[in-house]
Amino acid sequence: MNAPVRIMGVDPGSRFTGWGVIESDGTESRYVDSGCIALARGKPMGERLAQIFTELGDIARRTRIDEAAIETVFMHKNAQSALKLGQARGAALCALIMAGVTEPAEYSPRRVKQAVCGYGAAGKDQVSAMVARLLDYDEELAEDEADGLALGICHAHHRRMAQAAELVRIQEEEAVS
Amino acid sequence: MNAPVRIMGVDPGSRFTGWGVIESDGTESRYVDSGCIALARGKPMGERLAQIFTELGDIARRTRIDEAAIETVFMHKNAQSALKLGQARGAALCALIMAGVTEPAEYSPRRVKQAVCGYGAAGKDQVSAMVARLLDYDEELAEDEADGLALGICHAHHRRMAQAAELVRIQEEEAVS
Repeated sequence: MNAPVRIMGVDPGSRFTGWGVIESDGTESRYVDSGCIALARGKPMGERLAQIFTELGDIARRTRIDEAAIETVFMHKNAQSALKLGQARGAALCALIMAGVTEPAEYSPRRVKQAVCGYGAAGKDQVSAMVARLLDYDEELAEDEADGLALGICHAHHRRMAQAAELVRIQEEEAVS
Repeated sequence: MNAPVRIMGVDPGSRFTGWGVIESDGTESRYVDSGCIALARGKPMGERLAQIFTELGDIARRTRIDEAAIETVFMHKNAQSALKLGQARGAALCALIMAGVTEPAEYSPRRVKQAVCGYGAAGKDQVSAMVARLLDYDEELAEDEADGLALGICHAHHRRMAQAAELVRIQEEEAVS
């Protein structure tokens, strides 16, 4: 068991930015907080980006996160929506970095589903249900919130795998020497 | 003549972000400073966005800007490049807003060329040459720098037009009463 690490998963969008904070000790993950930043419709784009930046930064500092994860974007129907999503992602990444997370991790939607549900083609409902079960959380979760928490769980999972691999490497070195 | 206003024009890109600061008293525009933020290749995306955010914010505070302008993006060949550009724009807009510019103005490339060169289909070289002439600046300007300054000139021009329209409206009201 390691010192607990606080991880924030963020799912930025041009209308809603879901986020979830979990705490992981390397074996278990615990729910800390989650929510969804709804951007005010009809406001100028600059103001909406500032809302993501300030609210997410405030949450990151308040919940004292150590690390963060965001979803990779891999394809788009439409260049105009890709630009809008990019702007929201830029604001979210700046907020995380300014809150002290030097390098937010990135995971594909497939890897997130794989880590949470065990297979990469899981549906939205399955992700929500597994997030609630893994974190022992029995209240309703908004879809974007569940996505944020799923990213956090995925990051905790990958940290654990990386630590295990490091441990095996050290043991092998010791066995050789 | 009005109190001088400092305007920063910003041309964000996924590799280079050009910027230019001018001072306008409502009749003339004066060169203050300009430059180009070159993003370190090969660094993680989060770090590059943080570079735009912190450098642009520092420049905005150092040059004590009052207002800012950014170019609208209207079409893209490619959704992946639109996403990258969006991220850079998001970081730049957050930097401007956090530096106290509540609402950065947006102008289409066509309106910028129209304001600087007198016609919307002007080429890059013509824009650079007119920027240098209007600001009485005789050193070489990088293309992105010239674009930043052109945006500043465009914003000064539109502020002037808006003020003139307001003046006409007040005079007409006085004439009626």
